[in-house]
Amino acid sequence: MKRIAILGSTGSIGTQTLDIVQHAPEKFQVEALSGGYNTKLLIEQANQFKPKLVSVATKELADEVLMNVSAGTKVVYGEEGLIEVAAATDADLVVTALVGSQGLRPTLAAIDAGKHIGLANKETLVSAGHIVTEAVRKKGIAVLPIDSEHSAIYQCLNGENRSQVSKITITASGGSFRERTRAELEGVTVEQALQHPNWSMGAKITIDSATMVNKGLEVIEAHWLFDLSYDQIDVLIHPESVIHSYVEFVDNSIIAQLGNPDMRVPIQYALTYPDRYTTPTKRLDLAAIGKLHFREMDYTRYPCLRMAYESGRQGGTTPTVFNAANEMAVARFLKGEITFLQIEQVIEAALQKHESYSNPELDLIHEQDQWARSFAESIQF
Amino acid sequence: MKRIAILGSTGSIGTQTLDIVQHAPEKFQVEALSGGYNTKLLIEQANQFKPKLVSVATKELADEVLMNVSAGTKVVYGEEGLIEVAAATDADLVVTALVGSQGLRPTLAAIDAGKHIGLANKETLVSAGHIVTEAVRKKGIAVLPIDSEHSAIYQCLNGENRSQVSKITITASGGSFRERTRAELEGVTVEQALQHPNWSMGAKITIDSATMVNKGLEVIEAHWLFDLSYDQIDVLIHPESVIHSYVEFVDNSIIAQLGNPDMRVPIQYALTYPDRYTTPTKRLDLAAIGKLHFREMDYTRYPCLRMAYESGRQGGTTPTVFNAANEMAVARFLKGEITFLQIEQVIEAALQKHESYSNPELDLIHEQDQWARSFAESIQF
Repeated sequence: MKRIAILGSTGSIGTQTLDIVQHAPEKFQVEALSGGYNTKLLIEQANQFKPKLVSVATKELADEVLMNVSAGTKVVYGEEGLIEVAAATDADLVVTALVGSQGLRPTLAAIDAGKHIGLANKETLVSAGHIVTEAVRKKGIAVLPIDSEHSAIYQCLNGENRSQVSKITITASGGSFRERTRAELEGVTVEQALQHPNWSMGAKITIDSATMVNKGLEVIEAHWLFDLSYDQIDVLIHPESVIHSYVEFVDNSIIAQLGNPDMRVPIQYALTYPDRYTTPTKRLDLAAIGKLHFREMDYTRYPCLRMAYESGRQGGTTPTVFNAANEMAVARFLKGEITFLQIEQVIEAALQKHESYSNPELDLIHEQDQWARSFAESIQF
Repeated sequence: MKRIAILGSTGSIGTQTLDIVQHAPEKFQVEALSGGYNTKLLIEQANQFKPKLVSVATKELADEVLMNVSAGTKVVYGEEGLIEVAAATDADLVVTALVGSQGLRPTLAAIDAGKHIGLANKETLVSAGHIVTEAVRKKGIAVLPIDSEHSAIYQCLNGENRSQVSKITITASGGSFRERTRAELEGVTVEQALQHPNWSMGAKITIDSATMVNKGLEVIEAHWLFDLSYDQIDVLIHPESVIHSYVEFVDNSIIAQLGNPDMRVPIQYALTYPDRYTTPTKRLDLAAIGKLHFREMDYTRYPCLRMAYESGRQGGTTPTVFNAANEMAVARFLKGEITFLQIEQVIEAALQKHESYSNPELDLIHEQDQWARSFAESIQF
């Protein structure tokens, strides 16, 4: 029986994590859930999975939830609430599925409390990779990536000597506009951008797939997760998202992980590692698919990925600014304030304006994160 | 420094094994070589790699070799010679790259002497899987497959729990006639059959690829190597031979091994397992390849594969007869005595005539092997 806590249980990764739990209730005990503003769903989840602790965004929402869950469930709120869910239960593993940079402090709290991490919040490593990596090393806990790409790499490294890895390749579907030229990206709508061809995901990450920011964040995350230089991390366009990523070894042998695009496989793998159990997913049928396609990444077509590599190589507070400016730009795009192509212009402007600090502490990361958000919010076109 | 002996050093696998040794002379010591009838090449190899022992087919050839190698090299011959190369040196690992069923006794001798095996002779497991598996278990030695498909499966199982494997899939290029219908196989020539599209291999295995007998032998070999039922072993047509084979786990996650078709990667892996070192091979460039294709195996187009599965499921002496009848049929085809499509007819006739004995001892296997050869030789069309 594995005891788990979920930060972000009402989001896309959170609900799929609970779907896994529901299919194997004898294997998991849900200790705590956090659900932001979606109290309706959080109350349903609390009544189904009986956690000892739930957390919401505000005191008002906490009062509402408290009246609708069983007496044994403690209800907390705010950042302290998130930190309590992360660190103050008997959970063995904390799934960190919060969206954006708010995931950072609770994830660190979970690590400090000796919990293993099921990491779906990639901004944690992007902004504070040096701090998180050091905390993980000190505590000796496992960080099990939930992103399909990083889960793939993790699986491919099973039983292998890490010093014999020459490269990893992260595959990219190309996102919702992959068949469009840059000229054809002028005037695309929010609705068009939200149609991801392969994966069922949240709105922000779907936009990040279309801009390739998501892949950029994954590259930076992979740098920290697998202790690889940026020269050892490639990105390859693979429209079918069947090969989820792969590892190349010094002998030119490649180990790849494949499957249908279904987040429940990497989620469950993080929950049950090193074991594997049946999942409520479909088997991959390569003969039915018939063909897999691959093409070189185009850094002119996808400048956000180029900027991500540059940010990662610069390090310090630069990846934080890359990420924060993007979060604000995507929010503004989703509200209709800026166009799709202006997302990358916002990021570029923030990176140009920013002066990078190396080896930043959490407070400085937070400060630069806030600066980048304000700056990104203020840019007018 | 790993000490190795090579059974069949002048063949395709043997010469590629020595190519690997030559590229990393500080890692390997060649203890013994056996070379059949090709004394010219064997003498060259002996003078380059300075083994303590070499073996040839006959006493006359042994006398010839003795006069052309340094005084420190002992020269032996015949089946006893093979067994001495296999078992009587200080080798840690014996590469068994003999063609056909002659590989059986020397391989067993090597296992009994506690040597690890680099297995390129698939007939060993096909004919005597039950005996070999038991001997391997008793001695606690490792059998490292050198076939690219089995090496792929072996690599994909690294660090995994074998009980959580649901299936393996062995990929098949389809061989030299893969774009032809059965009707178009009438009257194909030996020269046409010897043009394998992807792999550089010996003549017998190239014909076996075209008939799909090779894939059938691989299925039976996989059954023994990985302790899987025949229902757990699939074959998929994949013309590019880039995905060398893959393992599907109970969670529907697939781990695959990929690379350019170059036997030196699996050969070196067997020699250096569990470590990996650089190889004199080309890196795989999926973007340059662009597309990978897959299609269902067609058991009507490839009846030899259907017969292999049936032989494997029947077990006992049946796989021996399947293999021996095929060896004779291929020899007759290469000599121009029978047509390409008559290869499968010879095998089918032998299997129909044969009465299977279960759990046979070595002598009975040998007897049935001889019977199948005589029978296959005698069939007139």
